[in-house]
Amino acid sequence: MLKGIAASSGIAIGKAYVIREEENAINRYEVKDTEKEIKRFLEAILKAKEEIESIKETAVKNFGEEKALIFEAHLMILEDEEFKASVIEKIKQNINAEYAVKETVEMFEGIFLSMEDEYMRERAADIRDIGGRIIRALKGEEKSSIGDIKDKCIIVAKDLTPSDTAQLNREYVLGFITELGGKTSHSAIIARALEIPAVSGIKGATEILKTGDLIILDGVKGIIYINPDESLIDEYQNKIQREMEEKRELLIYKDRKVLTKDGKRIEVAANISSKEEVDVALKYGADGIGLFRTEFLFMNRETAPTEEEQFEVYKYVLEKMEGRPVIIRTLDVGGDKKIPYIDVGTEMNPFLGLRAIRLCFERLDLFKTQLKALLRASIYGNLKIMFPMISKVDEIKRAKEILEDVKAELKKAGQKFSDKIEIGIMIEVPSAAIISDLLAKEVDFFSIGTNDLIQYTLAVDRMNEKVSNIYEPSHPAVLRLIKMVIDNAHKEGKWVGMCGEMASDISMIPLLIDYGIDELSMSAPSVLKVKKEILKSVD
Amino acid sequence: MLKGIAASSGIAIGKAYVIREEENAINRYEVKDTEKEIKRFLEAILKAKEEIESIKETAVKNFGEEKALIFEAHLMILEDEEFKASVIEKIKQNINAEYAVKETVEMFEGIFLSMEDEYMRERAADIRDIGGRIIRALKGEEKSSIGDIKDKCIIVAKDLTPSDTAQLNREYVLGFITELGGKTSHSAIIARALEIPAVSGIKGATEILKTGDLIILDGVKGIIYINPDESLIDEYQNKIQREMEEKRELLIYKDRKVLTKDGKRIEVAANISSKEEVDVALKYGADGIGLFRTEFLFMNRETAPTEEEQFEVYKYVLEKMEGRPVIIRTLDVGGDKKIPYIDVGTEMNPFLGLRAIRLCFERLDLFKTQLKALLRASIYGNLKIMFPMISKVDEIKRAKEILEDVKAELKKAGQKFSDKIEIGIMIEVPSAAIISDLLAKEVDFFSIGTNDLIQYTLAVDRMNEKVSNIYEPSHPAVLRLIKMVIDNAHKEGKWVGMCGEMASDISMIPLLIDYGIDELSMSAPSVLKVKKEILKSVD
Repeated sequence: MLKGIAASSGIAIGKAYVIREEENAINRYEVKDTEKEIKRFLEAILKAKEEIESIKETAVKNFGEEKALIFEAHLMILEDEEFKASVIEKIKQNINAEYAVKETVEMFEGIFLSMEDEYMRERAADIRDIGGRIIRALKGEEKSSIGDIKDKCIIVAKDLTPSDTAQLNREYVLGFITELGGKTSHSAIIARALEIPAVSGIKGATEILKTGDLIILDGVKGIIYINPDESLIDEYQNKIQREMEEKRELLIYKDRKVLTKDGKRIEVAANISSKEEVDVALKYGADGIGLFRTEFLFMNRETAPTEEEQFEVYKYVLEKMEGRPVIIRTLDVGGDKKIPYIDVGTEMNPFLGLRAIRLCFERLDLFKTQLKALLRASIYGNLKIMFPMISKVDEIKRAKEILEDVKAELKKAGQKFSDKIEIGIMIEVPSAAIISDLLAKEVDFFSIGTNDLIQYTLAVDRMNEKVSNIYEPSHPAVLRLIKMVIDNAHKEGKWVGMCGEMASDISMIPLLIDYGIDELSMSAPSVLKVKKEILKSVD
Repeated sequence: MLKGIAASSGIAIGKAYVIREEENAINRYEVKDTEKEIKRFLEAILKAKEEIESIKETAVKNFGEEKALIFEAHLMILEDEEFKASVIEKIKQNINAEYAVKETVEMFEGIFLSMEDEYMRERAADIRDIGGRIIRALKGEEKSSIGDIKDKCIIVAKDLTPSDTAQLNREYVLGFITELGGKTSHSAIIARALEIPAVSGIKGATEILKTGDLIILDGVKGIIYINPDESLIDEYQNKIQREMEEKRELLIYKDRKVLTKDGKRIEVAANISSKEEVDVALKYGADGIGLFRTEFLFMNRETAPTEEEQFEVYKYVLEKMEGRPVIIRTLDVGGDKKIPYIDVGTEMNPFLGLRAIRLCFERLDLFKTQLKALLRASIYGNLKIMFPMISKVDEIKRAKEILEDVKAELKKAGQKFSDKIEIGIMIEVPSAAIISDLLAKEVDFFSIGTNDLIQYTLAVDRMNEKVSNIYEPSHPAVLRLIKMVIDNAHKEGKWVGMCGEMASDISMIPLLIDYGIDELSMSAPSVLKVKKEILKSVD
């Protein structure tokens, strides 16, 4: 049994699939039978081709034709006669195939990198990728791309990057176990959104566990059992059964409006990170979208999404939600969410650095494009725009000014947008909570981002397991700030939501209701549980 | 003219001395005249010896015999016949001297590193050091050790580490200019303590400036002028004159007790980082030591200071201060102050990580040794112990428990300590300020660390120049927290000091007095200016 952090609830029972970090050492040695070595190389090429074809297929299915183009490029390299000839030439000089591939790849890479044309220079990365794949095929190593997994399994990895989780195939992935990451890391957030049980913070997991080990993953307790006995498996299978029943029972709350004992309406909304998750939100009866994290639109790509691309996504979400409130947060990157074409540089403390609205003020091109797309989409539903990481009055004033500029530009171009868009801010920096009386005059609503608010208030990095014991949502300072924010907003006649982890913490809900919270937003699968909890005192 | 951050006030006029990061490429080439090459090598040895002799001399003068021992080791290597023979052997094979030294150094390094004995293994670093010095001598490169500087100059560097600043010779260094660092970086703090004018945050300074450029450094405005004209030099020379006069005039405040208009006593104390600075504190009439940063005792060494070493330092400071209050802060490392023998590991956000009291709880060996030394020294003066980075009530309770354990141990061993030691905490984490009513019940005093408090409250890394514009001491949230802390402490009959930068900000002092602050602690050279400011309303 190993104890970690409960990152995403639910139970999974299945075989482990361990993803180790790749070993890069490629040794040169002499081969006598060059014919056999050439055959080995050509077989590896075939294997690599098969792999890429199947990845391409999945990619088309999951992400559309465009994203799959990169694999076309990979296939072209594999079929390139010059490339093959160069490797074979080297093998004929008694060099082993792995080393021959390595040298050829390096040569081609050098040629591409020295080209004037940027597009061609970027192909160097493809050559490197494909070279790695051929060498893995030669070594008989398992590929370690999460997207390639084709059997039901529990993934065990050092860490899952946002791009890893984006590749996850829910059909095959029963759960995941990571060495790093905490309860509020991005992989954990995604896991909860996709309803995949997960345990994080298990040190040495990729060493201790072996592919094929039978695992019980308890995402509620943050525990995993390795090769457990029959009785434990039975016990957990019963638990899974009960959970499924509970889920079914919870469905009666799906279409209920939530009122407190005092008859006050509480909106129970869902946090989403992609347009695909809107369906999950609706499935679980979310009253709206309390937080659409738009940064995921900007990840895993080479250039920023265009105004048109963004417009389509925002429009889709607004239309799907059919007039229910949809709070879209403007780009919140920097910090732990780095993006290749937005160079923040290296920062000693990225969480205290150039991120979110601070970065948007530096990159007005990105910010204005997003605001334009949002405004244009606003006529398709009930849009509310939310700015992240506001720490002082000047910042919200400036954000609103920029929004007005963009509105003027659209008006001039004859483009329509709603004139009823509510403007809000995240309350996640302690200073914002402390001056919420002043900020309340500037906005229509607040949404308390408890994850960051706790992090800054207690000066503890929520991703750092060395201090995760200090991260304490019910710290009296945090509760006092939350109460202060709600009181200050209500004095100005504004409403307050909450979109951090705390919003779905059953034990905190009575207190939040008592403080007067107006909206709670959480990962979709928690919506019904929270609705039930609030209605408990009424029913 | 270049604009940076005003890191340490004062004006300096002098020649630039640019420290570039060392270039490491050592090429191998064939030498024909091996005799000449051997001569070149032996001359380099002599030059290196001279350099080390002179560094050793300075080190003895500044830091005592013990610290100079390392240079003895370096000299021994230079005189080692085996080392010399090995290099000469290689040169005879037509290898250039630089490369021959490099190869020999690597060989010796390998031998030392493979030894069982830890002391011998550590000598590998000495070999590397000395190798670098010989190679620099061979290349005719200027040495870049700050401690070696022997002409009056303004130092220009990428950044100054605490170990660089510890080597600074005040006699020769007129000022310094750094590319990185902010107003509250450690180099800036040290600069102010040593009264060396400094401007930081000048990007590309080491590229733009050349050794020998005439510089006017205006540490008040954060500006530097490169090769200015005569009239500007005259103007600044007049300024320097006036400043010296002002300083003389301020001396009338040296022995005055500071009372406000209401007759309330305000203590104006000094922050120090080493026992040497006590003299500066007394010279400027400090009423006490408001913050002794003990972490500098732990830096620039291979092992932790022993209880005895620490005891001697604390005793020295307490005796020198003759009964005036001396607040000694327990070890505050981690974050930006890394120490070789205290391995915190790599953290993504060290400011939100395992630092200060959090680290001390993990390293009870270090913590208890320091507490023992402090307690034993307590009978020599008016000691107050202060714990840094407290964020919750449990932490101060635990720190006090550990202190009680140590007291019990000392009692058992028959060792004496004062029974009148006041216990306090830094208020630097927002949560501590917000629950200061609860914390006030646990301590005798608070000291508000404004640098960190602002940093966390506004979620802005004070060292990161990309967001330094957001670091705003007079942000209403910060002021509200300060008032809250003072009010809460006074309600419990406890007193409140302040030891961050804000304590010496003349523009803030009327407000802090109004809030009811009891003590202000700052770099020694600011003490008189602050005394004058407070007395202005009385005189």
